[in-house]
Amino acid sequence: MKLNLLKIGGKVWSSEKEKKALLQQFAQLDGPKILVHGGGKKATELCQQLDIPVKMLNGRRITDAQSLEVATMVYGGLINKQLVADLQSLNIQALGLSGADLNLIKAQKRLKGAIDYGYVGDITSINTKVLQVLLEQGFTPVICALSHDGKGQLLNTNADTIAATLAKALSPYYSVKLHLCLELSGVLENVNQPESLIPEMDLKTFKQHYRKGLITAGMIPKLKNGFEALESGVQSVQICGPGNWYQEKGTQLCI
Amino acid sequence: MKLNLLKIGGKVWSSEKEKKALLQQFAQLDGPKILVHGGGKKATELCQQLDIPVKMLNGRRITDAQSLEVATMVYGGLINKQLVADLQSLNIQALGLSGADLNLIKAQKRLKGAIDYGYVGDITSINTKVLQVLLEQGFTPVICALSHDGKGQLLNTNADTIAATLAKALSPYYSVKLHLCLELSGVLENVNQPESLIPEMDLKTFKQHYRKGLITAGMIPKLKNGFEALESGVQSVQICGPGNWYQEKGTQLCI
Repeated sequence: MKLNLLKIGGKVWSSEKEKKALLQQFAQLDGPKILVHGGGKKATELCQQLDIPVKMLNGRRITDAQSLEVATMVYGGLINKQLVADLQSLNIQALGLSGADLNLIKAQKRLKGAIDYGYVGDITSINTKVLQVLLEQGFTPVICALSHDGKGQLLNTNADTIAATLAKALSPYYSVKLHLCLELSGVLENVNQPESLIPEMDLKTFKQHYRKGLITAGMIPKLKNGFEALESGVQSVQICGPGNWYQEKGTQLCI
Repeated sequence: MKLNLLKIGGKVWSSEKEKKALLQQFAQLDGPKILVHGGGKKATELCQQLDIPVKMLNGRRITDAQSLEVATMVYGGLINKQLVADLQSLNIQALGLSGADLNLIKAQKRLKGAIDYGYVGDITSINTKVLQVLLEQGFTPVICALSHDGKGQLLNTNADTIAATLAKALSPYYSVKLHLCLELSGVLENVNQPESLIPEMDLKTFKQHYRKGLITAGMIPKLKNGFEALESGVQSVQICGPGNWYQEKGTQLCI
């Protein structure tokens, strides 16, 4: 059975109208589906309002105790519950989840290396059994970028990583289509030229582009996650934008 | 089948140790169970940090758009997800829910009368079917004080009212025990004397006390909700505290 897994970033829409259009497309998809979302932009705004310093390193967020509280509020509360209410208004039986709910995503606090990322979790297991139960009931999981360690500690986990890991974990049971949706229309030859969209990218081309430094920092983990998902049995992976994800006209990855 | 429904306020514990003790008692309850929580205290703190004026009228919160965002973050995110993570660490298959999730609690925005309460919802329906599905799976719902109108609008709804309404809605299917847990040990003759706990209160006594002005403002809706629940078929209702709810030694209501 086909399963669509759409991951959206916080910058995917710039207006309520754009948001609604995207959610309507999502609502119209047949069969089981899952929405995964981040919310880093809004979390950064709230940190600023609360005078909590935002610490980034190589495009990755350092999550101290205060930043984790903000992430829990913004990802688990504000964005998740609003998306659920929006989807309910479109007659989707949406169910908001963090990784702690139903023990969905268990993670290990990242060990301190040269850098201490703080309360960041590296996924150790996905509760695919519980996800199948929910999907069989016709529920649509809306999953935010939080995991937990099983000992009462919530952890911040990158939403792209969550989406790709979920896609991999579900691929033995479903034919998973993973859509990693960002504000651009996909992988671009030139980030300032929307028309330079690369319709298809294989692993070899990615590695060549990567070596030449042609792939921007934020795109690297997305592509790595995407190729890894494909290699692990996910049926299809596209890097796409709000205007083309639905027609599958973003950048299709292939191996 | 017996079902325990515990409602906790934000002031029920004053330390992590007390919180853990209460959650451990809850975790040890046999059979299906539901936790309902508020979080007004923490929401007020966050409003203050964000310079959002907190407007109260007769002990009731006026919820403007900004306050609703705070409620969504604090109730739906911060408190809900941490309680879920805590319960998971005690091997409870907890699932955090707002009223929007799975269309659990539908409400109508309160009509503007002499007072405009803002984004406050009066409950119109409870999705008992979906709750039964969750309980039959062995899941433990952890429900926060948010409802929705089915058109994409989240609404703030009093947690005591949610707990009592859930208890009533579930009473045709379960023998529901409702525990309304606050920071006191129950209804007290004298609010400053913990030993003045009234072990049992009937509707007649409540009405007498109420007329004499002996019931404090915050206790009135709790008692009204409680008696209404009893009259609607809920098996037992107690107003209790963190130290006695488990032994059912708070104030037992009777009709």
